[in-house]
Amino acid sequence: MNSQNASQSLQSTLSEANRSHVLHYLYAHGISSRASIAQTLGLSAAAITKITARLIDAGIIHEVGGIEGRKNRRSIGLELNPQQFHIIGVKFARSLVEIGMFDLKGSMLALTDLPTVKNDTIPDTIRTIHATINTLLADDPSIVAIGMAVPGPYLRHEGRTAVVSSMQGWRTFNFLDEFSNAFRVPVFVEQDARAGVLAQHLFDPASSSCRNLAYYLLGEGIGLGVIDDGRLINGAQGAATEIGHVSIDVNGLPCDCGNRGCLERYCSAVAIHDKLIETGIIARADQMTHKQACHALFEQASQGDTAAQTLVREIGRYVGYGCVTIFNAFNPERIVLGDIVAEGGQPLLDAAREVVDERVIPELNQATDISLTKLSADAAVSGAAAVAVTQFLDHPSRFFAIT
Amino acid sequence: MNSQNASQSLQSTLSEANRSHVLHYLYAHGISSRASIAQTLGLSAAAITKITARLIDAGIIHEVGGIEGRKNRRSIGLELNPQQFHIIGVKFARSLVEIGMFDLKGSMLALTDLPTVKNDTIPDTIRTIHATINTLLADDPSIVAIGMAVPGPYLRHEGRTAVVSSMQGWRTFNFLDEFSNAFRVPVFVEQDARAGVLAQHLFDPASSSCRNLAYYLLGEGIGLGVIDDGRLINGAQGAATEIGHVSIDVNGLPCDCGNRGCLERYCSAVAIHDKLIETGIIARADQMTHKQACHALFEQASQGDTAAQTLVREIGRYVGYGCVTIFNAFNPERIVLGDIVAEGGQPLLDAAREVVDERVIPELNQATDISLTKLSADAAVSGAAAVAVTQFLDHPSRFFAIT
Repeated sequence: MNSQNASQSLQSTLSEANRSHVLHYLYAHGISSRASIAQTLGLSAAAITKITARLIDAGIIHEVGGIEGRKNRRSIGLELNPQQFHIIGVKFARSLVEIGMFDLKGSMLALTDLPTVKNDTIPDTIRTIHATINTLLADDPSIVAIGMAVPGPYLRHEGRTAVVSSMQGWRTFNFLDEFSNAFRVPVFVEQDARAGVLAQHLFDPASSSCRNLAYYLLGEGIGLGVIDDGRLINGAQGAATEIGHVSIDVNGLPCDCGNRGCLERYCSAVAIHDKLIETGIIARADQMTHKQACHALFEQASQGDTAAQTLVREIGRYVGYGCVTIFNAFNPERIVLGDIVAEGGQPLLDAAREVVDERVIPELNQATDISLTKLSADAAVSGAAAVAVTQFLDHPSRFFAIT
Repeated sequence: MNSQNASQSLQSTLSEANRSHVLHYLYAHGISSRASIAQTLGLSAAAITKITARLIDAGIIHEVGGIEGRKNRRSIGLELNPQQFHIIGVKFARSLVEIGMFDLKGSMLALTDLPTVKNDTIPDTIRTIHATINTLLADDPSIVAIGMAVPGPYLRHEGRTAVVSSMQGWRTFNFLDEFSNAFRVPVFVEQDARAGVLAQHLFDPASSSCRNLAYYLLGEGIGLGVIDDGRLINGAQGAATEIGHVSIDVNGLPCDCGNRGCLERYCSAVAIHDKLIETGIIARADQMTHKQACHALFEQASQGDTAAQTLVREIGRYVGYGCVTIFNAFNPERIVLGDIVAEGGQPLLDAAREVVDERVIPELNQATDISLTKLSADAAVSGAAAVAVTQFLDHPSRFFAIT
């Protein structure tokens, strides 16, 4: 590249970056005047006029009637059109696959739950995913991207998951080979808890301004996604923040990953399901899915069953040990608990907090908020959509024509 | 700020960023032509001429005779003057304080070891630090900054360490209040292992291009510094990557931080010293400093003493458990072991690797390098200098006049 090409390329990179900043601003702040956007982003009036004109032409933003401007003058507002483009999100857990359609703000427009997956039905599941997505794409031309959330540790350059404890069939499956060129729109794949933290950041207004955010995924596996100073922690291969495989007891239970005492062995939906079958606390638990068994436990506990309540407290303490590790390893400002096991609700959260209060350095504990996700349970799949929405906001010109 | 001021300010931010990029480039690549710098950084010939002229005026870089250019033409080379400016580094451990003077490339020009610190001699130590630094500053006008490396968890906004297990006297001491305005040059304070990873990145050529690097500090405390995709992981309060307080056994030994089974309780120099006193493997260990006791153990093991060798292997296994956590939590490309306990050398590293081979996901293990630091033992204090050198390269105009 000669220096003239380099500076043209730099110019186009800067234009795209400014477009992205404007979209992120409107996404987070709602209706805003050109003046307030320009002021916050340090852009000239000329630059903001040019950028917004192109975004209006593309239909991604529109003008709204006079809003209160500075010095009490009325000015024109700008607003994002979150319905202008649609996103498909696909969530892969171990035995669960869900496909949802969303607008850019994460509102769910449609949801398909696929039949429970077993090691030997993975090929059928893949065929169904292709068919379902193709039908959605044929019916709705406004779909611009597909996000996929997959269990970690996900090797992002290879396109596959390194270990899926209790369901190794997924291990040989390559998400990028299978899906990246399969559809008319681009596909983005991310580890599920990392997708979850993006969803919290984009779709929960309480977390949108949080620069140090952790999403603690308590599902069929245990995962963690961390935004540190505004950026996702990925690791060299995409396998960082795998809290489910951090040991809480180096002499503890063996795990499919090779380690011992992995947190996942004590408080994942799979581990809880095993415990329910072993103890008989829930009748006919062996005929339930992992998710159904956990729901049944939480339901029975809420109705006052002592054995169920004791087990929920015990699970909550293990969730708490994981929180303590999250504090000392990542020091986030906020930890959000989500997915199947988080539906244990307040009693589970209380037990986890008890452990945190006992074991975390007071200065860190005081400065950190721990809460249950406010996104609806079905919205676990919204994390998959958030992966694609993030790409859309970061690189808008890849998704619609900029004239 | 109106938009004209905003764009002036943006211009000056961009100029400083470009200056910083040029310095970083020359720092990492050695003698380079203007053309190669311009090409790599995407800068125009005019911009590079202007930037380098100012850096030459300031004496931080100089021209060297004709070097091999593109198309076999001779061109003028540019080179950083690492001796043009000096840096003071101060390392605080629990009982150890070291003060070193360095050039910008981390070469040590002077070193002072302060007398062993006890809880009740901290005020004396502080007075000695002031006096020593003031003498160095008076004697050498080329000193432009002071870096300090302190035990974590260091609350960076407050200026103090939250817990210093086995030496709580430091806890009430505020580094920023005490030092930030005490000298004619700026002072930068960083958690010690984070300072250590900066030193590896800046001063060890083998790690300078590594974008996912971990420095595993095995000293009086156990610490960790992680660069993820080129950026330090800090956490909201500066207390992230505190591997020493990540539990390896939730029912294990209690720690001053409130947690149980903290890694630090098993393989820090303090824990090893306790073990040596308890077992009597090293004679008169109770009259030694932590560092002396560890040295004596490693020496005795290298001379073939079986009890000493067994203990080194046991320590190595605990170091290995910490490595396994580092893999699963941070997935770095390289883990460098340093400080007192790393002087256990190859037998200790072998024992740690054995645990890693047993317990880490093969795809991660294969892609990750674990090694002992190549920086000299005394150079532990070079981490403190690296904190200030990093600031110098990132914000050059704060340290010398740009005309």
